[in-house]
Amino acid sequence: MTNLLDTLRATVGPAHVLAEGDLTAWEQDWRRRARGKALAVVRPGSTAEVAAVVRACAQAGTSIVPQGGNTGLSVGSTPDASGTQVVLSLARLNAVRAIDKDNLTLTVEAGCILQNVQAAAAQAGLLFPLSLAAEGSCTIGGNLGTNAGGTQVVRYGNARELCLGLEVVTPQGEVWHGLKGLRKDNTGYDLRDLFIGSEGTLGVITAATLKLFPQPAASLTAWAAVPSMEAAVRLLGLAHQHLGAGLTGFEVMGRFALSLVAKHMPQLRVPFMEREDVPYCVLLENADSESEAHARARFEALLETAFEDGCVQDAVVAESLAQAHGLWHIRESIPLAQAEEGLNIKHDISVPISRIPAFCEYTDALLAREIPGVRLVNFGHLGDGNLHYNVQTPEGSDARAFLRDQETHVNHLVYEAVARFGGAFSAEHGVGGLKVAELEKYQPPVALGMMRAIKQALDPQGIMNPGRVLRR
Amino acid sequence: MTNLLDTLRATVGPAHVLAEGDLTAWEQDWRRRARGKALAVVRPGSTAEVAAVVRACAQAGTSIVPQGGNTGLSVGSTPDASGTQVVLSLARLNAVRAIDKDNLTLTVEAGCILQNVQAAAAQAGLLFPLSLAAEGSCTIGGNLGTNAGGTQVVRYGNARELCLGLEVVTPQGEVWHGLKGLRKDNTGYDLRDLFIGSEGTLGVITAATLKLFPQPAASLTAWAAVPSMEAAVRLLGLAHQHLGAGLTGFEVMGRFALSLVAKHMPQLRVPFMEREDVPYCVLLENADSESEAHARARFEALLETAFEDGCVQDAVVAESLAQAHGLWHIRESIPLAQAEEGLNIKHDISVPISRIPAFCEYTDALLAREIPGVRLVNFGHLGDGNLHYNVQTPEGSDARAFLRDQETHVNHLVYEAVARFGGAFSAEHGVGGLKVAELEKYQPPVALGMMRAIKQALDPQGIMNPGRVLRR
Repeated sequence: MTNLLDTLRATVGPAHVLAEGDLTAWEQDWRRRARGKALAVVRPGSTAEVAAVVRACAQAGTSIVPQGGNTGLSVGSTPDASGTQVVLSLARLNAVRAIDKDNLTLTVEAGCILQNVQAAAAQAGLLFPLSLAAEGSCTIGGNLGTNAGGTQVVRYGNARELCLGLEVVTPQGEVWHGLKGLRKDNTGYDLRDLFIGSEGTLGVITAATLKLFPQPAASLTAWAAVPSMEAAVRLLGLAHQHLGAGLTGFEVMGRFALSLVAKHMPQLRVPFMEREDVPYCVLLENADSESEAHARARFEALLETAFEDGCVQDAVVAESLAQAHGLWHIRESIPLAQAEEGLNIKHDISVPISRIPAFCEYTDALLAREIPGVRLVNFGHLGDGNLHYNVQTPEGSDARAFLRDQETHVNHLVYEAVARFGGAFSAEHGVGGLKVAELEKYQPPVALGMMRAIKQALDPQGIMNPGRVLRR
Repeated sequence: MTNLLDTLRATVGPAHVLAEGDLTAWEQDWRRRARGKALAVVRPGSTAEVAAVVRACAQAGTSIVPQGGNTGLSVGSTPDASGTQVVLSLARLNAVRAIDKDNLTLTVEAGCILQNVQAAAAQAGLLFPLSLAAEGSCTIGGNLGTNAGGTQVVRYGNARELCLGLEVVTPQGEVWHGLKGLRKDNTGYDLRDLFIGSEGTLGVITAATLKLFPQPAASLTAWAAVPSMEAAVRLLGLAHQHLGAGLTGFEVMGRFALSLVAKHMPQLRVPFMEREDVPYCVLLENADSESEAHARARFEALLETAFEDGCVQDAVVAESLAQAHGLWHIRESIPLAQAEEGLNIKHDISVPISRIPAFCEYTDALLAREIPGVRLVNFGHLGDGNLHYNVQTPEGSDARAFLRDQETHVNHLVYEAVARFGGAFSAEHGVGGLKVAELEKYQPPVALGMMRAIKQALDPQGIMNPGRVLRR
């Protein structure tokens, strides 16, 4: 191994091979679910250096764990405990390589922080719409590696849909230059989408060409109280009809989730919490290519129809950008409020939108029956059929003991319910090391077989992020 | 082989195994570029039957050529001349399995004619936006197998972006049920997008779950004369800004292409042909979620800005649906007018939109220099950077001799120019059997190596549409 470390030092410079001292930032995952031990953290400064690092590791038979901002929620970017894996940090590959306004594309390196990608687009008067809670520290390489989702998927799609091309270092240390930035390119198999969402198990994404969009002339936010999840789904249908592609966000939040925000962030005023007949609220965003006045008129027409329909009990439209930010801030504070309330069990599930009401009714009742006193923090991206259907420990219980005794059981109940309603146990967070068993259980054998064959074909040595997504 | 035919007859019924008589409809490709000879044409009536057919062929070591509407332009769905391949026609798998309005999805079998898919969506008050010239006879399975494009890609994307899930029979005759219809699903590698665009070389698509959209309240069409290709690109940028997601079509047509329509279809009145200073015309479509009046106002604001900018010389907005259809009819008549004029060499290329003007200037001059008297029928989907940059034989020349002597040379010149400008030799038509050599030439070895490894991993026997996309 000394040999490998020497080669790596010669490749990227001794300052960029970290093998001693406190490596917690690279060895521990974001949610502190797992703490690994790296042979070294290597920080190459160019694609050529990434390729050389991969070649050296391949030669030594040493595993590689690619890492961006290390903000993943499924333990996919930290090393295992063996002390034999190299963490390959893309943090220094953070250049904006090119912006092409006429082609509506932006080419960035994998280590670019998402917020900087957004800013580079905005500076050119354009929009890169991927937006999620960790945007201040996650990287675009990680976003693509995990096919990140977020709050604007209802209009713009996941990270996958926002990417036109990739540059990738293969497990053999070769560079695939696939950054053409074409909107139509049918010249062979779709390698791009194979790497997107493969969580570093098939190669290392080093750069990407991304789709940009015109910036909307105005963006308006509304907050609606709805009498049921069925009503929320009906409101979504009306919003699609009325706003068309203007509908850029559609979030649902359960009453208990919002009550935690009201409790732990008393400075935030959560609309309609005083009304006891409001089980869910919905946050809608309407981006308009014309004007704020037009956006407001469209929102008013939508809400009028929704009131008549009965799917909305009450609603406010933000009068200013500050008010809009305030409403989004409430939505985004749910995870923090949940953490303040204590330990909890998180899920990131999706089911067909049409089946969400039945799924919630069924699973709410199931959990209440199986785990007396359970509290559900149900919120998420209803426009995409994606719920963070989280389970808070019963009030006053020993949270640590509850998690120890019940987490596997709770996961089982939720994932079985998800499967029953035709859904997926991971919607936007990926599989990582955390959900490998779920993948084996819920993907049919024929799909698993194809995934394993692809892994074997592209990474026969099995050195790329082994044990993630697929068992090694 | 008798054994195999007997097995196939027992599987799908003797009436659905065609081994004698005139099989031209299945053996000859749409453009009559190649005429093959099938061992048999097999027409299974269900996914289970498709799987049984594939198992029987795999057992016998017999190759399979999946076929939908047989309207492909790259010779990808007809058998070779050996008389040993089974054509697997999906025509009888043509059911609309389910429509889910709340989930905005439609599940259809592979053999559904595209127009019937559109109609099923429209009947539910929704839109399936894939639209292309062959829609009356092509099938959705073929559209997905080739990742078809068409005229609304600028807004809705290619077939790939319109598909949420697939059902596939693998080369081993197993069925992968991947029809969940989820908008977010990060549970392993993206098998769906691997099959989309693989042209039947990795398995047989038997059904798909497709994305639907709200129907626009109004759709307006405009026709603009522009002074140059640069101006057309500038107009595209303005259209994105002004119309946002309302911009659903942006087609460019060169003067010579339009002059052929005027010449061969004198009943069609081509706008602005009397102005000799008009080198290109652009067809724009604006779909509005509000009203026709609103769509018209947005179009007027766009055209006003465009006139001021100088990127539009003259423009008309269709006053009625009939006028709009008339304008689209002119655009869609170009291929036919071209055929009336005589033999020609077709291309389906893409380059980054920003480089299209320079590409055209360079390639127009190159061809004029290399092939005196050459006539360019240049038109296509500028909004996606996709041109059908076709070459008509010089006036008065012996067209057949010209093609015989010049086709390879012309293709070489055009594809080298495409590569020089960072483009792709196939934008929306695929590789088929026609462009295998181009794939080998223009895909970098590292990409080719991965494609071959994937083919080998999923179809080790090499029985799925061998020799298409990749050389056998």
